[in-house]
Amino acid sequence: MTAAPNQAITAAILVIGDEILSGRTKDANIGYIADYMTLIGVDLKEVRVVPDEEAEIVAAVNALRTRYTYLFTTGGIGPTHDDITADSVAKAFGVPIDVDQRAVDMLLTRLKREDLNEARLRMCRIPQGAELVANAVSAAPGFRMGNVFVMAGVPRIMQAMLDVIGPTLQTGAKMLSETLEAGLPEGAYGSALGEIQKRFPQTSIGSYPHFNTSGGGFSNQIVVRSKDPALLAEAVAAVRLMIEELKAARGL
Amino acid sequence: MTAAPNQAITAAILVIGDEILSGRTKDANIGYIADYMTLIGVDLKEVRVVPDEEAEIVAAVNALRTRYTYLFTTGGIGPTHDDITADSVAKAFGVPIDVDQRAVDMLLTRLKREDLNEARLRMCRIPQGAELVANAVSAAPGFRMGNVFVMAGVPRIMQAMLDVIGPTLQTGAKMLSETLEAGLPEGAYGSALGEIQKRFPQTSIGSYPHFNTSGGGFSNQIVVRSKDPALLAEAVAAVRLMIEELKAARGL
Repeated sequence: MTAAPNQAITAAILVIGDEILSGRTKDANIGYIADYMTLIGVDLKEVRVVPDEEAEIVAAVNALRTRYTYLFTTGGIGPTHDDITADSVAKAFGVPIDVDQRAVDMLLTRLKREDLNEARLRMCRIPQGAELVANAVSAAPGFRMGNVFVMAGVPRIMQAMLDVIGPTLQTGAKMLSETLEAGLPEGAYGSALGEIQKRFPQTSIGSYPHFNTSGGGFSNQIVVRSKDPALLAEAVAAVRLMIEELKAARGL
Repeated sequence: MTAAPNQAITAAILVIGDEILSGRTKDANIGYIADYMTLIGVDLKEVRVVPDEEAEIVAAVNALRTRYTYLFTTGGIGPTHDDITADSVAKAFGVPIDVDQRAVDMLLTRLKREDLNEARLRMCRIPQGAELVANAVSAAPGFRMGNVFVMAGVPRIMQAMLDVIGPTLQTGAKMLSETLEAGLPEGAYGSALGEIQKRFPQTSIGSYPHFNTSGGGFSNQIVVRSKDPALLAEAVAAVRLMIEELKAARGL
């Protein structure tokens, strides 16, 4: 569903897990969700990573869910004692939480009833009022509580859940972007690029240096972003002209 | 310098940049800094990613610098208009900012004076009272303002700056950890592992499922962490015994 023109649909990500903060696990979900949101027209505005501590999770959930259209959490919904996301989200919303029969039924599509022990039932604890999000990989569901989507931390499962969630989201105009190779040092075009940004305040122009580890030192890319294709084209043309003029002045 | 025993030294990371939130650039600094902090005995407690917007940067800098021993920022200190980190940090501390002659001198070790244009001088804007952090890669410095370390976003430069910063940090006892392959589904040991966590409240025990894309489905690792080597060994022994008993009960 597409929002009214000019209505920005925003989102935040909350990554939950000591293993990310200790460096043991390298997060792969932030970049994936960021790409996904850009593709469907949702503006990702903030990311936080917090440890497996209830007070931290509750505070972050409440700070982010009240500020953005959507909040996506990853991590902490498995069967072990350190998985406290569902309980924390229930607390953030001030609702009870218990084993949810719908979640039990989902697990039973993969498990024998005699294997449904206390630990696995922990994965069926769902805050009252939440809708379940199917998990095509390992059955244990995520859920949606208000504007908060609670997903697994394992990237493959998170991605499967996001495929279920994506089509249900309200989306805004898509951010369009064009990338130009500068072929010049940033310091050579910084001021001129700033002037172009001022001329096109409704576009967002960024300059991104990249170090080529395979040799060749730095290369710089200029990215122009706008939701308006005509404005984007105008700003890109201005940046292209700037690059050509600066190169010509250097005999390049 | 090592802190008094039992004094935890904490840190947060603030990643600054639209390019991370749009998905264009995949962050590589969070995991690197997390590993580095664990290695030297600093507890990374929180990470935030915010866009190139002054109000957002100021709010996040102030929220994090007042709560943790150290705050490390990455990104937004280049020569283009979207590089607003130094000005935002000055605002967060309520101090003036201007071109700093020490930073100019550093740039002049790499640049000819005639190439020191307005854009490059932007990289020399340093909040009053800050100490510079040398940049062995491309000369433009980072800085330390109070307990806030402002670093570049390009991983290679950030890493060079962190090598300068690391030895100046106060550090606590190092977190020790041991990893055991469970060889069992998480649901089979979740309850028993929770009991072990209760018996060893001063250790932190986590269970991390991993999906092997090369085949073989999921494997689970149990990580036991503690700053006390004797406690760590005791808890690890308990986890190892639990695994052996559960495997034996399944005829594995």
